[in-house]
Amino acid sequence: MSSSVSPLAPKHVPAMPDVAGVRLATGAAGIKYQGRTDVLLALFDKGTSVAGVLTRSKCPSAPVEWCRVKLKGGRARALVVNSGNANAFTGKTGREAVNFTAKLAAQAAGCKPADVFLASTGVIGEPLRASAFEGVLDRLAQGATPGRFHDAAKAIMTTDTFPKVATARAKLGNATVTINGIAKGAGMIAPDMATMLSFVFTDAPIAPGALQALLSGAVVDTFNAVTIDGDTSTSDTLLVFATGAAQGAPKISKASDPRCKDFRKAFESVLANLAEQVARDGEGARKLVEIVVEGATSKKSARRIAMSIANSPLVKTAIAGEDANWGRVVMAVGKAGEPADRDRLSIWFGDTRVAHRGARDPSYDEAAVSAYMKAPEILLRVGLGLGKGRDRVLTCDLTKEYVAINGDYRS
Amino acid sequence: MSSSVSPLAPKHVPAMPDVAGVRLATGAAGIKYQGRTDVLLALFDKGTSVAGVLTRSKCPSAPVEWCRVKLKGGRARALVVNSGNANAFTGKTGREAVNFTAKLAAQAAGCKPADVFLASTGVIGEPLRASAFEGVLDRLAQGATPGRFHDAAKAIMTTDTFPKVATARAKLGNATVTINGIAKGAGMIAPDMATMLSFVFTDAPIAPGALQALLSGAVVDTFNAVTIDGDTSTSDTLLVFATGAAQGAPKISKASDPRCKDFRKAFESVLANLAEQVARDGEGARKLVEIVVEGATSKKSARRIAMSIANSPLVKTAIAGEDANWGRVVMAVGKAGEPADRDRLSIWFGDTRVAHRGARDPSYDEAAVSAYMKAPEILLRVGLGLGKGRDRVLTCDLTKEYVAINGDYRS
Repeated sequence: MSSSVSPLAPKHVPAMPDVAGVRLATGAAGIKYQGRTDVLLALFDKGTSVAGVLTRSKCPSAPVEWCRVKLKGGRARALVVNSGNANAFTGKTGREAVNFTAKLAAQAAGCKPADVFLASTGVIGEPLRASAFEGVLDRLAQGATPGRFHDAAKAIMTTDTFPKVATARAKLGNATVTINGIAKGAGMIAPDMATMLSFVFTDAPIAPGALQALLSGAVVDTFNAVTIDGDTSTSDTLLVFATGAAQGAPKISKASDPRCKDFRKAFESVLANLAEQVARDGEGARKLVEIVVEGATSKKSARRIAMSIANSPLVKTAIAGEDANWGRVVMAVGKAGEPADRDRLSIWFGDTRVAHRGARDPSYDEAAVSAYMKAPEILLRVGLGLGKGRDRVLTCDLTKEYVAINGDYRS
Repeated sequence: MSSSVSPLAPKHVPAMPDVAGVRLATGAAGIKYQGRTDVLLALFDKGTSVAGVLTRSKCPSAPVEWCRVKLKGGRARALVVNSGNANAFTGKTGREAVNFTAKLAAQAAGCKPADVFLASTGVIGEPLRASAFEGVLDRLAQGATPGRFHDAAKAIMTTDTFPKVATARAKLGNATVTINGIAKGAGMIAPDMATMLSFVFTDAPIAPGALQALLSGAVVDTFNAVTIDGDTSTSDTLLVFATGAAQGAPKISKASDPRCKDFRKAFESVLANLAEQVARDGEGARKLVEIVVEGATSKKSARRIAMSIANSPLVKTAIAGEDANWGRVVMAVGKAGEPADRDRLSIWFGDTRVAHRGARDPSYDEAAVSAYMKAPEILLRVGLGLGKGRDRVLTCDLTKEYVAINGDYRS
């Protein structure tokens, strides 16, 4: 945890309602940090569905491999998350730690190990002492209560400067259901499926297959549209748990069920909110940067160009320096390898068009753009003039603080 | 030009011999910088062959487009290079500036505009005042003399902290030929054909087609194996000029000619030397980092994994912080999208194996590795254990100075 909160932290932190069928508890297992909580236990009522998206890294962590297998069952009774150690690249020891933790949690929760989901975040390559959970998980299970989402978000932080929570309500049939989410960032963040850790809880009664379809659709323009540094984690895990405990809500067995419409919208808003908070808390971030690419040959092409801009160190350092250096945006468009015609390209910072059809816009006012660049939130828009493909990604600037944070994170 | 020279600058700067058939002159056209040279004119004897590799950016500069067309002719009489302005994304004005400069240079050199090659480096998006060359090119043509390669390398610098020169001699038949090269870096450097600006001059008599084949082969493991920040320039230009003025050397019409063997080796050594100097002078660099990937399924796969490591901000900042954070190397291997098996992966820093077959090497001495990380040159080796594919790339660390240099470069 960093000592100072990001200046981009949301001004308003929502009160988090209970989610029927979910009980939470946090504790200090002393995995790495001293004097703070570092383990979260979530317990779910019987019949809870689970869906998830996991890192596409070829070197995934042991808990990611565990979740990939257990997701096939579609059912969950418990979730254990620890911070301070990612249990990644830990070989046989890592698999043993996962098995042992699941066994402990299953005993504490009164369920099968296969119904336990696991996630770990922190240093890569250090063995995780799962024995540290012994006793702790039992105690947490006994003390677990509804609510406590803020505490849960705090327990999973690493270099995050603020806990990330979001909530929404949705109509499902004649019932109202709740969707609560928590997430942690803050570096090694580039989406290639899910990104970092995030857990979403709802009392809506949604079958596992439908839940998975809703999640896979919702992640595209939320978590997968965020990048901090282009580095994809070994531990990316986004899980959603649907307890079905909401009173009077219809059971949903297909994502295409028209009754899902409002739920889908609320669900996406929770993911989008959390994803934006991750960008706001990028390591060393001082600017939230929204990149919109329009006029591409497809959405996919627009996404690739937007990501090329969002991951360019030269664009990110220019924004840190409050310099509307659109020449570097041209460079990033050019290197993306996607269809682009230099002589149709236009670029805006905020409302000011700085470049138009392959050259500087002769009418633009440098002083006005310079003033705009001092804002904490920057909109950078690119028009390709080729087609109707449009996409949007979020990122942050690249500051000396990012270098400082990551030059001595492990030690 | 930065005020302090990179600590990684070569200790020994070679004397640069003349290259028969090449005359050089440098001058100050006041394009952007004051009190320094910013324009280079090279004149070549009749019959000089030219070959080149140019950026693959979809938004190339006006001089890159000019060179792409003129390279088809295979012949050169003059080269004009300016620093301070890249003449990129300058639209019709940029094309006019190119045409005008070529005309001026042709008049000064007594040749056709089509035999003039052009390169520009510096800020993107600002119109290049080609009128600044009026008079200057005439004067330079009159004063051009053999030698002056150090002056030439200085005139093309931007944020470079030292001029980059390299030289080699080779046997061609019974004759000895000379190969001289100059280059400039120092940011926006990620190879996707050539990288930044480099010019190589030889008196060997090599036909254009053969010269192009030799160059395209030599660039793969030299300039295309260097990355500073993953950002590919709009202006990447590597040109080689062969005057054929060496006494008694056989004319080479095919790159496969067995008499080329020694020339090819010397030529590659010049390119490799310049490419390494570019890495040594990466913006803000304090460490030269050599990344070797072995045991991949192919050389291409090894290259992609090596580049994924070399371009990872988290790996680069860890090296800046002198932290042997091999967990981030695991991450970068995992995100490359190439075949990799976590449980066969081994990693070395220098001679120390820190990770072996999917877990920390239990025998490694952290103190010894920490001491190693303080060196100015770091070797990072990855063994995938899958096949015989091997590759090597060069990069540098990512420091706060990189962020500082690029946060206020344009202004």
